[in-house]
Amino acid sequence: MKVRILAASLLVVGLPLAWAASDEPIQPIQPAKQINLGMVELGKKLYFDPRLSKSGFISCNSCHNLSMGGTDNIPTSIGDHWQQGPINAPTVLNSSLNVAQFWDGRAADLKAQAGGPIANPGEMAFTHTLALGVLESIPAYVREFKTVFGKDKIDIDQVTQAIAEFEKTLVTPNSRFDQWLLGKKDELHADELAGYKLFKDSGCTACHNGPAVGGNSYQKMGLVEPYKGNTKGVEGRAAVTGKDADRFNFKVPTLRNVEMTYPYFHDGAANTLTEAVDTMGRIQLGKKFTKDENARIVAFLKTLTGDQPAFTLPVLPPSSDATPRPTPFAKK
Amino acid sequence: MKVRILAASLLVVGLPLAWAASDEPIQPIQPAKQINLGMVELGKKLYFDPRLSKSGFISCNSCHNLSMGGTDNIPTSIGDHWQQGPINAPTVLNSSLNVAQFWDGRAADLKAQAGGPIANPGEMAFTHTLALGVLESIPAYVREFKTVFGKDKIDIDQVTQAIAEFEKTLVTPNSRFDQWLLGKKDELHADELAGYKLFKDSGCTACHNGPAVGGNSYQKMGLVEPYKGNTKGVEGRAAVTGKDADRFNFKVPTLRNVEMTYPYFHDGAANTLTEAVDTMGRIQLGKKFTKDENARIVAFLKTLTGDQPAFTLPVLPPSSDATPRPTPFAKK
Repeated sequence: MKVRILAASLLVVGLPLAWAASDEPIQPIQPAKQINLGMVELGKKLYFDPRLSKSGFISCNSCHNLSMGGTDNIPTSIGDHWQQGPINAPTVLNSSLNVAQFWDGRAADLKAQAGGPIANPGEMAFTHTLALGVLESIPAYVREFKTVFGKDKIDIDQVTQAIAEFEKTLVTPNSRFDQWLLGKKDELHADELAGYKLFKDSGCTACHNGPAVGGNSYQKMGLVEPYKGNTKGVEGRAAVTGKDADRFNFKVPTLRNVEMTYPYFHDGAANTLTEAVDTMGRIQLGKKFTKDENARIVAFLKTLTGDQPAFTLPVLPPSSDATPRPTPFAKK
Repeated sequence: MKVRILAASLLVVGLPLAWAASDEPIQPIQPAKQINLGMVELGKKLYFDPRLSKSGFISCNSCHNLSMGGTDNIPTSIGDHWQQGPINAPTVLNSSLNVAQFWDGRAADLKAQAGGPIANPGEMAFTHTLALGVLESIPAYVREFKTVFGKDKIDIDQVTQAIAEFEKTLVTPNSRFDQWLLGKKDELHADELAGYKLFKDSGCTACHNGPAVGGNSYQKMGLVEPYKGNTKGVEGRAAVTGKDADRFNFKVPTLRNVEMTYPYFHDGAANTLTEAVDTMGRIQLGKKFTKDENARIVAFLKTLTGDQPAFTLPVLPPSSDATPRPTPFAKK
């Protein structure tokens, strides 16, 4: 009998936790697992190393700034020679949870993504060969690559794999919303909970769901009404599939840490969450949220800010006499 | 008698330590003292915050990168709209030990320096008023300034004082050379010691002395032979004093962490320490170091790399709806 009562108590205590996580369209962020720590330390250095760019000035962290929600907080990024990028830099935070990388999903995973900006003439403007030449000339890097990968020569696969391994650690668990999901029912205020209910009831969770609250499907921007923002030179998913039906389809962005990842949309045209919620309601759902409704949804969205990555700023190994010098002011 | 022997022993043990530090032209770097930690944490955020620039892209750390010896490792820096700076960015490491700031000493101290780049049209291209408007619009900054300074309004003096307080912590004690100075006599190898002896005997320590191995006087670049590098638009100390005799006089740069602070000289024209030592020998001292002599001096210089600043990358408070947005691509 005592055993039965105990089991029943456990059931009562256990249920809300299990229920909250499984019954909601959003699940808590899990801390990173199966991580190669040596590879992470190497990848962290590479992520912060502007010597992977032609100018010696632009690193991964320039546009996916880990002090600022893994973004650059400007509409479109600044590339080599101050070129204006074509699209808003998506956050690197929780990007391991994305179905694919880039707004159009043209990279299957983080490793495939990492090589892109290095060789993009509008971004870091380097080549993989030149980047490898720099790394091979720096004795401390040569030793660290050998320790991590056990090979005599550095190749671009090692570089992108190390960066991707570091990026896998950039998850943001422990948001107030996740604490609520995991059973701490007084964590959210009434307006935040009302905002979450409205977010679900309005259909936002049709696309913004899962642990990343997005990132797991492609959707048309402007489903009900056409999007009025910048469409110039942006094909969306069609650039990858070649299908006209995929034109202006984009990977649904994660809403994790969305308070930090402004401005919003592929063109960075929405400066505030209020504006973004209003536009999404109208063009995706055919709903005009009232000022109060909008404010409640925004209050909920701000509960999605999790623990930001916390690590010591890496110290980069110095170049050697043999290291090719960056050419920031050379003619393109 | 016992007391006397004890005293004599202490004298013997104590002497080499005291002697090493007082008798050499270079003294060990001391850890920072009398530091206001709350102000440091605020200043660290400001140091990493690109919202103090017009573009939202350039922070103090862009050109004085704490992953790279407190410099940008390019000959002259990249400013707003990729403008080419007129002079090499000096390291921020140990800059609290400088007699004054900038190559020409036009700022009396770190606080006076910190406001310069923010408002320089060729660097961060902002104004103090606009920068304060940004900070005042960010609730977490408003609270933090109030906690640290106890005032209701943020002003530029608080901003530059906080940045300066953070910069005071950026000293690099514990180099191998300092350990040797402090009595660990097997810390330096024979070639490094020979290099140090040559450095002293050749007269390098006439200018490169004190705890920072420089930074404490102004000297003419090209004392024996004229300097062949870039002199265009660079007046040196004369720009501050107005005296013709000060033309092409520069603050002697610190040699602390010099392995990390390449390229060298006010124009960043020397890519390697070998080249810098050769040029300095010829144009300042009238000496042509042999290849072996040069290598020994370089070996000594590499022992001056100290503990690099180690701190958690700061997370910046997000902008509010009221925060003026950066204008990276606006016409100048």
